[in-house]
Amino acid sequence: MALIVQKYGGTSVGGPERIRRVAARVAEERRRGSDVVVVVSAMGDTTDELLALACQVSEDPRRRHSRELDLLLSAGERVAMALLAMAIRECGVEALSFTGSQAAIITDGVHTGARIEEIRATRVREELARGRVVIVAGFQGVSRDREVTTLGRGGSDTTAVALAAALGAARCDIFTDVDGVHTADPRRVPRARRIERIDYAEMLELATSGAKVMHPRAVEIGARYRVPIRVRSSFEEGEGTLITAREAGMEDLVVTGLASESGHARLTLRGLPSGMGPMSRVLSRLAAAGVSVDMVAQADRPDGRRQLQLTVKEEALPEARALCGALVEELGGEGLEERAGLARLALVGSGMHGRPGVYARAFEALLREGIEVYALSTSSISIALLVDAANETAALQCLHEAFGLGGEQ
Amino acid sequence: MALIVQKYGGTSVGGPERIRRVAARVAEERRRGSDVVVVVSAMGDTTDELLALACQVSEDPRRRHSRELDLLLSAGERVAMALLAMAIRECGVEALSFTGSQAAIITDGVHTGARIEEIRATRVREELARGRVVIVAGFQGVSRDREVTTLGRGGSDTTAVALAAALGAARCDIFTDVDGVHTADPRRVPRARRIERIDYAEMLELATSGAKVMHPRAVEIGARYRVPIRVRSSFEEGEGTLITAREAGMEDLVVTGLASESGHARLTLRGLPSGMGPMSRVLSRLAAAGVSVDMVAQADRPDGRRQLQLTVKEEALPEARALCGALVEELGGEGLEERAGLARLALVGSGMHGRPGVYARAFEALLREGIEVYALSTSSISIALLVDAANETAALQCLHEAFGLGGEQ
Repeated sequence: MALIVQKYGGTSVGGPERIRRVAARVAEERRRGSDVVVVVSAMGDTTDELLALACQVSEDPRRRHSRELDLLLSAGERVAMALLAMAIRECGVEALSFTGSQAAIITDGVHTGARIEEIRATRVREELARGRVVIVAGFQGVSRDREVTTLGRGGSDTTAVALAAALGAARCDIFTDVDGVHTADPRRVPRARRIERIDYAEMLELATSGAKVMHPRAVEIGARYRVPIRVRSSFEEGEGTLITAREAGMEDLVVTGLASESGHARLTLRGLPSGMGPMSRVLSRLAAAGVSVDMVAQADRPDGRRQLQLTVKEEALPEARALCGALVEELGGEGLEERAGLARLALVGSGMHGRPGVYARAFEALLREGIEVYALSTSSISIALLVDAANETAALQCLHEAFGLGGEQ
Repeated sequence: MALIVQKYGGTSVGGPERIRRVAARVAEERRRGSDVVVVVSAMGDTTDELLALACQVSEDPRRRHSRELDLLLSAGERVAMALLAMAIRECGVEALSFTGSQAAIITDGVHTGARIEEIRATRVREELARGRVVIVAGFQGVSRDREVTTLGRGGSDTTAVALAAALGAARCDIFTDVDGVHTADPRRVPRARRIERIDYAEMLELATSGAKVMHPRAVEIGARYRVPIRVRSSFEEGEGTLITAREAGMEDLVVTGLASESGHARLTLRGLPSGMGPMSRVLSRLAAAGVSVDMVAQADRPDGRRQLQLTVKEEALPEARALCGALVEELGGEGLEERAGLARLALVGSGMHGRPGVYARAFEALLREGIEVYALSTSSISIALLVDAANETAALQCLHEAFGLGGEQ
């Protein structure tokens, strides 16, 4: 009998009425003959509300009381899973719910951002063998010294895919408030359409570039264990988007989809000495301070001096600015420039590798709209560009058009 | 170093501000040099709200989904304990919180009404030895097959006293919204005063007779393991009421306190045959149906026929009426009478045993007020009386006066 793991997000279980609707859907899948494991997030805004309570008791609960914060936040999924189990049983289908600890989702000990290390699914398997639907609390686990941990934002996706991998499920269905993965965010690009199939690498690229529909960690785990993942709407019927390994029959578009994210900034260190020394020192110093650098570029001037350019998230800008300012002085450079308020666009497609003219097409489209590019980087399946945040939507729309993502209509 | 267990009820931790106040109190006790374990209930009305959610998903969650209901309800204390641990740490005192399962509160498997069987307090002791305050979720435990259980209403009191017994605590402080145990409910009897010391047996009698200040199970455990219990206000300073074994120095009042409870009813089975047979059959039949009988009396008429009188809670009246009606027919009795809407008053005092005139004093007082008594029963330390619920307050007041409970003022 095929085993399906279904994951329902907070919006899908946002109240008793919605929980009953999800229950009906689960019961239907069970009656079609599948074994079903359901992973559930906390109801609606519960997690934010619990966090707000913690902030009324402590100024910085995440840093100061991460162990207690995990115990607090884990209460949210506990409520949702118990209610959903009741609702499924009311549909006449045997069901029971497990906390992350009961389901033996073993994580490391990093509170509020733990990583799943192992799933000892014996108890889940036993209940499935008895013909029961098993509901598991998403987002939470237990460390080897029996402390309750949480996986950070998007953690329920990760729980679902990891459970699907551990149980050898035929598929993991991620039910959410959109009907699948799109060629671009439909709120910004009206002509965006649902992608029917996408491979893990492309999905990972989109997810790390601002597509919120799935958490990157979950996609990584899916890729590693080859779990087919389907992203679909919990409010309407439909096939959604299937995420799998690249297969022969898949469309080979140059660009499969676009994603974007604001809040990026660029720093330029002018007039540094030549050679690899300065770049190395800058990157080490930033890394030691925990500042993540996204894009890096360098250019040599005719006088032999070198210019370094790097981009960071805006929240890291104050620290990056201070460190780079000090480094420019140390290295006898000419100065530091910064440009904040940038958005990062990603064009993603397994078909772009070795295909000539992709850059040209993108730059021509942006030029026509008068949109300047402040930095760029590439991988074998993606191109990332920084533009003014004010131009984010226009840039997405013209690139979407230029690569024919809207289809024939 | 003395170990104190403190228990705070839902009202005491009803919001972030109150949680901070409780934290300050705990920190103060710790700084005075005691080891401190804190047992905490869910915030304010959380448990009722969670129950209401369950009722929106199922008509009878308690009966139909008791396992899931326990998982749901246990989320409440988890929130309170984590917030309280954070707040105590914010006071500069090391603290951490444990769920019932982490604290190894082992119970039987009866969901929504489990009994504590054992507490394996190793982990709690370890943390105390490190100088930390340990917060434990009240009301919840874990069964031997690792299922989450809850102890039923008043369960947090039971957790606190049982933990105090397991840890050999010097005292268990029950912090609540009143300043101690009173000679009668102050809302009904304005002259009621706080009792300074009371013994376990008296307290148990008051608790089972409607005094809501402590749960009877908690008192029983306190008595068995000789844990001194202090009931005190979480909002103001004060000595509260100390509950201990009877000691030489204790006041030996005829009556220590009064308690009352409405919702009782009396059934009279008239004209039954003589002998023990009928009584035995009535009691067995009611017991088999799960109907608890409170008071029982019988009287023989001059013609040899016998009259049976028994009292039950009003919620059991429909079932008791049907069974007794059938039994009157079966036994060839004359008829069944009922009187509902009665209140049960209890006069409690270790000093009443062997003291003449206690009945007389009570009946004279009630007669003066024109209050009729419909049934009564006695134990060595209490007298219970049924009166019309409309007379509940008047009866309490005149008995309070008759036994001089208001003191000298």
